[in-house]
Amino acid sequence: MFKKILIANRGEIALRVIRTAREMGIKTVAVYSTADRDSLHVKFADEAVCIGKPQSSESYLNIPHIMAACEITNADAIHPGYGFLAENAKFSQICADHGIKFIGPTPDMITRMGDKITAKETMIKAGVPVIPGSQGLLESLEQAKGEAKEMGYPVILKATAGGGGKGMRVVWEESEIERAYNTAKAEAGAAFKNDGIYMEKFIEEPRHIEIQVAGDRYGTVCHLSERDCSIQRRHQKLVEESPSPFMTPELRQKMGEAAKKAAAAINYESVGTIEFLVDKHRNFYFMEMNTRIQVEHCVTEEVINFDLIKEQIKIAQGEKISGKDYEPTMHAIECRINAEDPYNDFRPSPGKITVLHQPGGHGVRVDSHVYAGYVIPPYYDSMIGKLITVAQTRQEAIDTMYRALSEYVIEGVKTTIPFHLQLMQNEKFRAGDFNTKFLETFKMQ
Amino acid sequence: MFKKILIANRGEIALRVIRTAREMGIKTVAVYSTADRDSLHVKFADEAVCIGKPQSSESYLNIPHIMAACEITNADAIHPGYGFLAENAKFSQICADHGIKFIGPTPDMITRMGDKITAKETMIKAGVPVIPGSQGLLESLEQAKGEAKEMGYPVILKATAGGGGKGMRVVWEESEIERAYNTAKAEAGAAFKNDGIYMEKFIEEPRHIEIQVAGDRYGTVCHLSERDCSIQRRHQKLVEESPSPFMTPELRQKMGEAAKKAAAAINYESVGTIEFLVDKHRNFYFMEMNTRIQVEHCVTEEVINFDLIKEQIKIAQGEKISGKDYEPTMHAIECRINAEDPYNDFRPSPGKITVLHQPGGHGVRVDSHVYAGYVIPPYYDSMIGKLITVAQTRQEAIDTMYRALSEYVIEGVKTTIPFHLQLMQNEKFRAGDFNTKFLETFKMQ
Repeated sequence: MFKKILIANRGEIALRVIRTAREMGIKTVAVYSTADRDSLHVKFADEAVCIGKPQSSESYLNIPHIMAACEITNADAIHPGYGFLAENAKFSQICADHGIKFIGPTPDMITRMGDKITAKETMIKAGVPVIPGSQGLLESLEQAKGEAKEMGYPVILKATAGGGGKGMRVVWEESEIERAYNTAKAEAGAAFKNDGIYMEKFIEEPRHIEIQVAGDRYGTVCHLSERDCSIQRRHQKLVEESPSPFMTPELRQKMGEAAKKAAAAINYESVGTIEFLVDKHRNFYFMEMNTRIQVEHCVTEEVINFDLIKEQIKIAQGEKISGKDYEPTMHAIECRINAEDPYNDFRPSPGKITVLHQPGGHGVRVDSHVYAGYVIPPYYDSMIGKLITVAQTRQEAIDTMYRALSEYVIEGVKTTIPFHLQLMQNEKFRAGDFNTKFLETFKMQ
Repeated sequence: MFKKILIANRGEIALRVIRTAREMGIKTVAVYSTADRDSLHVKFADEAVCIGKPQSSESYLNIPHIMAACEITNADAIHPGYGFLAENAKFSQICADHGIKFIGPTPDMITRMGDKITAKETMIKAGVPVIPGSQGLLESLEQAKGEAKEMGYPVILKATAGGGGKGMRVVWEESEIERAYNTAKAEAGAAFKNDGIYMEKFIEEPRHIEIQVAGDRYGTVCHLSERDCSIQRRHQKLVEESPSPFMTPELRQKMGEAAKKAAAAINYESVGTIEFLVDKHRNFYFMEMNTRIQVEHCVTEEVINFDLIKEQIKIAQGEKISGKDYEPTMHAIECRINAEDPYNDFRPSPGKITVLHQPGGHGVRVDSHVYAGYVIPPYYDSMIGKLITVAQTRQEAIDTMYRALSEYVIEGVKTTIPFHLQLMQNEKFRAGDFNTKFLETFKMQ
């Protein structure tokens, strides 16, 4: 059993870890930058050590400072949270070298999943579907035709030097490929002075659906069902839910098995997430594995009544997991409450929270590190809380979310609450009819 | 479907009803006394009507004022909450006479359960066990012996004019009865100038365990498992939990059946509670039925994932219930946060809340109508919130409660939080080893 855990993080996730550690009877050490002196994670931890200046490189990313805090306080384990050093194999290795347990996977597992090409190769070997793509650049139209035939239409042509849609063409059938190939090449050459193009399977109406997994050092892996994170703005998740409204029992079974294969392929030890893209035909493709706890882990906790941080700590302590897979028995939704102005392109809105009233009641969970009088520093992520609701059905979870959002009072800064209120009333969202492109056309009223 | 519900109550239960009504898309009307002008239930309702002066008789118990508010706002239903007019058959009748749906049972059901003697007779007829007692006063020692033999030892002799333990004797076996009978009679005569005594079965180590029931107008009844409310101070519940640590599957089955018989005996329509005393041998006896929602309904909601207020509204709208009985799948505990000083005999501590920070995170629910700056009026119940935690096991629910209590910040008034913190650390409480007498010997450190 750990005696004292140092949390190498800040904000709500630091508080989240402190809460579970306290429930388990484990002491906690908070570390903080000078900008976070008044943060709740500092107030609620048993001990707190200042590790440097506001800039992350001087504090939350500064490994020597964190290791020094660990030595001063005699902590025997480090929880990295998410972001910062959570997927830094070097940090994990340094912890191991100092006899401090890193609450997460080994450096080797982090490395194997951190490098995209290695990860993809590992998945192919393990029999996990990945997005089909051409082997390097396309040399000729004939090769393009052959590859497209093999992976099946539609496909997408992309400029190797590309970006911003230039030199990009979706091809729906063979009759279109010659023209698309030529145009894409010409466009790429004109835009980037490099006409190299490659091909990938085009994912129609992609959904971001991820599977939570857990594995222990004895080789047991299990999955804890899925989260749908398709409501994204510029690849930033804003709303997550479980189960996915697009899920079927068959698909869950298949994706769950694939996720377990993925975790087993690297003998994964800790909780982690396999992210997939799912197309409208319910084909799914591995995107990446996150070898850490995720922001959106709470929706899984609510639908399966399970404390994932506790599980993570237990696994790090060498305990065995049951190996049982979990099906969601409820429906949970999470809205990220960011200090951003949804009426102004989600521009960050740091500053002092003058009034705060959090919602409560049946089916409502709030994870937040802020309080009335708290000053949101401008240096970090703008997330100031997560509002999670849970109910027997998706419809009810949305209704509870709308109710809870309308009770949430945060004054002094702009927040994403008005965005979420409008989303919860959106007919397409309510019908579960959305994919990762949904927010591209969503307009605030 | 109701269009608009008036809530004839205040505080957290008014807010509780507003929340569910909002989730169901039903408009709400708050009523308030001049002392409650700044209460959250007034701020969160769609409309609010002042119904009079602070004294309950002038406002929350003033039926003409409430009916006028109903007429002004065109509400089509009234939710009475608990306390005040919730078990007032006359009020329920007046609602019916005015074509307003009373969200609760009919006047007849309230009356039949409101009168203790009628209720007991109804239960005996329905085959529900009640506490055995002598038929009126004991005429002689011989009669006392006969009755004791019939109901089985131990028995208790009580003065009919009694109180404060005078003229009260527990008799454990027949050899003691003559002496006890004579002493009790003499004591009663000396203390009350009335030596009449009667006899009841003595309940050893009594636990207060109640069964939540629901019934619809089509004759279907079901039970939603139990709550243990044995942690009481002068008959005021302070902590409730579900399941009861004393429960067994067999006892739950028996008590559930008895509770359903009790509800069926009066064709009960709404949600309600059958309160039992359970002795150390797991014999159980009907105490009373509460024909309303109870303060502690939340623990049931958490362990069976069920919104009891929604169920109550649906039944009042004429919907059918499923008839399925529920088993607890989790463990939930509720601590009543009262503005009282636990170091000073729980003396009420009204006044202004200067700082408020509510706990959050996994497994934590807060139901509270107060906020920073709110002034607790001295006229009503001192409860300012309910903190509910839920986890897979009782041990974990207690650990989460302790953690959540230690995060709860309320400044400006005294609260029961220090009491609950000590209780959660008490070895006997943690072991589930307690009965209704537990708090008689509990001392604050």
